[in-house]
Amino acid sequence: MNPTQIISDLLSKKPTITDVFFVACGGSLVDFYPAHYLIHSQGKRLHSSTTPSAEFLNAPPARLGSDSLTVVCSHNGSTAESLGAAALAKARGSTLVTLTFKPGSPIEADADYTLSYPWGPGSLVRQQPMALGLTLASAILAALDGYAYLEQVKEGIDKIDSIVDLAVETVQPRARSFALRYKDEPILYSMSSGASLAQAYSFAAFAMMEMQHKHASSVHSGDFFHGAFELVDENVLYVLLVNEGKTRPVDERALRFLERYAAKLEVIDARELGIRAISPAVVDVFNPLLFYSVMTAYRDAMADVRGHPVDTRRYMWKVSY
Amino acid sequence: MNPTQIISDLLSKKPTITDVFFVACGGSLVDFYPAHYLIHSQGKRLHSSTTPSAEFLNAPPARLGSDSLTVVCSHNGSTAESLGAAALAKARGSTLVTLTFKPGSPIEADADYTLSYPWGPGSLVRQQPMALGLTLASAILAALDGYAYLEQVKEGIDKIDSIVDLAVETVQPRARSFALRYKDEPILYSMSSGASLAQAYSFAAFAMMEMQHKHASSVHSGDFFHGAFELVDENVLYVLLVNEGKTRPVDERALRFLERYAAKLEVIDARELGIRAISPAVVDVFNPLLFYSVMTAYRDAMADVRGHPVDTRRYMWKVSY
Repeated sequence: MNPTQIISDLLSKKPTITDVFFVACGGSLVDFYPAHYLIHSQGKRLHSSTTPSAEFLNAPPARLGSDSLTVVCSHNGSTAESLGAAALAKARGSTLVTLTFKPGSPIEADADYTLSYPWGPGSLVRQQPMALGLTLASAILAALDGYAYLEQVKEGIDKIDSIVDLAVETVQPRARSFALRYKDEPILYSMSSGASLAQAYSFAAFAMMEMQHKHASSVHSGDFFHGAFELVDENVLYVLLVNEGKTRPVDERALRFLERYAAKLEVIDARELGIRAISPAVVDVFNPLLFYSVMTAYRDAMADVRGHPVDTRRYMWKVSY
Repeated sequence: MNPTQIISDLLSKKPTITDVFFVACGGSLVDFYPAHYLIHSQGKRLHSSTTPSAEFLNAPPARLGSDSLTVVCSHNGSTAESLGAAALAKARGSTLVTLTFKPGSPIEADADYTLSYPWGPGSLVRQQPMALGLTLASAILAALDGYAYLEQVKEGIDKIDSIVDLAVETVQPRARSFALRYKDEPILYSMSSGASLAQAYSFAAFAMMEMQHKHASSVHSGDFFHGAFELVDENVLYVLLVNEGKTRPVDERALRFLERYAAKLEVIDARELGIRAISPAVVDVFNPLLFYSVMTAYRDAMADVRGHPVDTRRYMWKVSY
């Protein structure tokens, strides 16, 4: 079944769903953030949360039960904490949807419904977890809460690959220039807001810390003004992901401040990179799909310039922990 | 009215509350995290979220309305985004509770109920926003969702000051030693889980970035193993807040890894610092009250050793932004 069919089928069996729990580790959890944000911001009766698998497994919400839909993603299908979280959700009576890059892997064992996705060169953004999550989220919102923009989400998903392809092409020289200029910076700060907050975290924690062993930290571009902005000076590098949509004024305020006080600033503006081809009614939740691909270009340029391949690891797959 | 009376009164007028929105900026938002976590983890019908004021104001949730309780804190009572968020909540028909250090300040203008609190030397933890939030949260949970541990929360609040006082005394020499050893570190990483996740963020964003102009980053101690841990080596400083309660195994796994691979490690263990005087049924949400005061001792020791007072500012209160 595709995501829309899954929602239709599960609601025919369980029309009383009140909560969607998105559960995963690392990058897979980040991938769920747009879907969570859509339900969190647009839901009326329906509620949503995102939780790291280890936390969900050790401290499951009291309301996890027969009125829950738990959605778990494990990229390789065998992440221990995610397997545990999925089994727990099932044991509590929750409906369980799992996503994985590897169909047939253990994460599918307890699932009521499974989805798999392609990854790597040539795979399409619209087939990947962020888009699958948005389809799941918009379908259940439409069915339960009368969400009015299902068609606009579908159109956005149809358009996202052409937008992303062009944006990635546009930023290639910028990404290379960024990497050449900043390859020796001791640290960078990434910032965003709204549905893209997890993309700021992702660029810091995964693109830099994990894949480049470089220091990084992420900050909400609105909360920035209540503490973190005191760190700004001419020597500190900021990467600002400026959303199109409702929280754009939040990012733009940070932009004005950084343009004034930060000499090292890279601005990635979804508006300038073509996101306005998507309906204003749903554009908020499409920003992160664009940012992920664009920031992957920045990450890869840094890897190339530094001679530090993105799959360089010291612990993962090498030692037990 | 005190927090318990406020919940009783507001539910007598509006028994249909489904959502609690905790809204604030910076440290005030961090203060709401234990209350949010209590509702999020223990709520059945009732749901909760924490949102930076700027985000709430620009992208309010669709379900904000007459079945909402919005709780807004502004320390000085005049934070622009928080005033805006409070006015918006009121205009949408939400019941509004505000907290401030300055009674009579503008944040009280739209409020249905107001709370104020003491701050600074001599003020008690049990009178401050984290404790007020826990009382509000446990009272509404008990009234609406049959939460069974109201008495244990009350007892915890009665005990917290004596626990904190002893813990702060215990860590004073450790905090001084930490500051002397690490005053010149280029960056530190703070980690925790569960109800204390916001304390890890707070130590990074406020104690270090804002008040010491030092680089810092925070990571969830479970999600750590899915990317961020690749940064660990003998040169990077980690500060780990180990919770008592359900997510302790998550923190302990990070501890075992850090003890093996990180030479620079400061462990703040709530268990060792006396938190077990509080009932296991509610201890999870009391860890952050302990950690805040303890990490304030670490922050102040760093300020003292570095000769950089915690109220040193470059932008706040000095330039417009």
